[in-house]
Amino acid sequence: MSVIQAVRWSDDGLGVRIIDQRALPATYLERDLRTVDDVCNAIATLAVRGAPAIGVAGAMGLVAALTPHAGEDAPAFARRLAGYAARIRATRPTAVNLPWAIDRMRVRASDPALAGDPARTLAALRAEATAILDEDRAMCRAIGEHGLALLPNPARVLTHCNAGALATAGIGTALAPLYLAVERGQHVSVLAGETRPLLQGSRLTAWELGRAGVDVTVLTDSMVASVMREGRIDLCLVGADRIAVNGDVANKIGTYAIAVLARHHGIPFYVAAPSSTFDPKTPSGEAIEIESRHADEVRRSFGMQTAPLEARVHNPAFDITPAALVTAFITDRGIEHPPFLSSAPPAREVSAR
Amino acid sequence: MSVIQAVRWSDDGLGVRIIDQRALPATYLERDLRTVDDVCNAIATLAVRGAPAIGVAGAMGLVAALTPHAGEDAPAFARRLAGYAARIRATRPTAVNLPWAIDRMRVRASDPALAGDPARTLAALRAEATAILDEDRAMCRAIGEHGLALLPNPARVLTHCNAGALATAGIGTALAPLYLAVERGQHVSVLAGETRPLLQGSRLTAWELGRAGVDVTVLTDSMVASVMREGRIDLCLVGADRIAVNGDVANKIGTYAIAVLARHHGIPFYVAAPSSTFDPKTPSGEAIEIESRHADEVRRSFGMQTAPLEARVHNPAFDITPAALVTAFITDRGIEHPPFLSSAPPAREVSAR
Repeated sequence: MSVIQAVRWSDDGLGVRIIDQRALPATYLERDLRTVDDVCNAIATLAVRGAPAIGVAGAMGLVAALTPHAGEDAPAFARRLAGYAARIRATRPTAVNLPWAIDRMRVRASDPALAGDPARTLAALRAEATAILDEDRAMCRAIGEHGLALLPNPARVLTHCNAGALATAGIGTALAPLYLAVERGQHVSVLAGETRPLLQGSRLTAWELGRAGVDVTVLTDSMVASVMREGRIDLCLVGADRIAVNGDVANKIGTYAIAVLARHHGIPFYVAAPSSTFDPKTPSGEAIEIESRHADEVRRSFGMQTAPLEARVHNPAFDITPAALVTAFITDRGIEHPPFLSSAPPAREVSAR
Repeated sequence: MSVIQAVRWSDDGLGVRIIDQRALPATYLERDLRTVDDVCNAIATLAVRGAPAIGVAGAMGLVAALTPHAGEDAPAFARRLAGYAARIRATRPTAVNLPWAIDRMRVRASDPALAGDPARTLAALRAEATAILDEDRAMCRAIGEHGLALLPNPARVLTHCNAGALATAGIGTALAPLYLAVERGQHVSVLAGETRPLLQGSRLTAWELGRAGVDVTVLTDSMVASVMREGRIDLCLVGADRIAVNGDVANKIGTYAIAVLARHHGIPFYVAAPSSTFDPKTPSGEAIEIESRHADEVRRSFGMQTAPLEARVHNPAFDITPAALVTAFITDRGIEHPPFLSSAPPAREVSAR
């Protein structure tokens, strides 16, 4: 099975090589991010997206953006580092992985052993970003291994948005158990909700699963309920952008509807996410800021006018699913249940760097 | 308040004048249907759509298509009538209004008093189609009057697809109470689910409400659940394509999800429909044929590629909402509850012709 890699170092090591997700599925386009503008623009416009992937790309992007400036004097470099880190950290508000990764980079840079030396600091940051990348890949695989236990064979799985390889540096979060199951010869068929307004389900999930040879069928978000009623879904499996201590989940808009519908039809609803998605600073879903995106994502979809131009539009990018609707959480540490009091990456991954 | 009229006789009386709903909201285009091909093509491609409107357009279209042939001998004309009626009746399978209207036309044509005379038959059919048109307008207004009693003031109403003026020959079914409430100075705000794949909510409902000065906000179908959870919807109000004797409702795909979500959040869910939508030949939802439409409605949305071209697609046009999830039915005869044992148009409308 061939699963794509959405984020990695560019061939010359000076940039972050991403797959431009805005162009999929019609065009496969790789792009190198080298400046802070490149990085912020790619995250804000969803060229790179998915909570784990934007954490990884943010950390690596910080290194790429700082690399040409290693010759600066220490105070100028420190100011630049702080400024770039703040800009990248602020590009999107909801997923916790991005501030988590950037904060981890800033902690690394503040190590007194580096003595404020720009060249040494940059080398340490490059190693830290590479560790975040490698840990993300390992976490995806661990999620996949733990999630395998929850899959019947055959398994008919509903997913939403894209919590796959394109949303991480590895084989995904929600899709990781499915890739591993198929690799082991189990029968898996996936229903991918298209995920309006930006269609990450039909454009991205259907693309990466199809490319890897996994059976996938696209449906609009409005069709999920009737498919459940027809008994054609064994379980729901989605990712997360932030998970509160009480287990409330922020994820792509539409996730909450699926959770309610799954409960109504007696279908298990699982959330798969790496440790960095669990936020000990967020007590419950009410404390999570929900990004509101531009009305034209709904009003002028895909270059066409799809609503009156003067129509008002409600366009939140995420919703909150209360913990009570989540059957279980699949993490790199195993199957878990709330409350979640710590989100520190497990020791084995930290030591892996 | 200015509400558009979606179906009427053309100025010369020889064709059916429709608003071409494929072009909205970017372009307002009226089109005259004069041949059986025009009529079938307009219904099949959704140039004219909405269960009541296709019944009216089908009956009027049958007259328009037959008009040039009134000089034929009686057997040839009778064969043509039977052939055209069968073709128009078969253009779309789910809404009951179309076969209801065509069957009513055939019954009228079989009146022995017409003695098989093509010219007299055609005149009788024209009167019958005009009666169906006028009754539809009267039924819309009656639904509006009865529905008014269910609206709080102010009312925040979620609707789905288009059950408005564009779906009827009058002021709509689900939207009729809202038009009348606004006309009487009540405060009404409408949330219009965009209704993928063909966006009748954002393209049509938002357009006709906005044109009439009614406050409307568009959201994607996936956003309905979170808006309900935030307490921003007082009631749901949708139309229907066919209602079974036991009260099961076939309506635009996504309706069932809204009904389940409304029940979960304790929000009333109303179905508004004229008498012709209640089908005494259909005992329950299981007996209703669900039209499956072309994969490209999902795969190549808005003229762009929105899913891999080789992806399989599930694209039912309708779903079934069980009667137990419907708070009440708003009909031209009043607020009703199942079972529905008769769907004959009420006496006052029949006598109106």
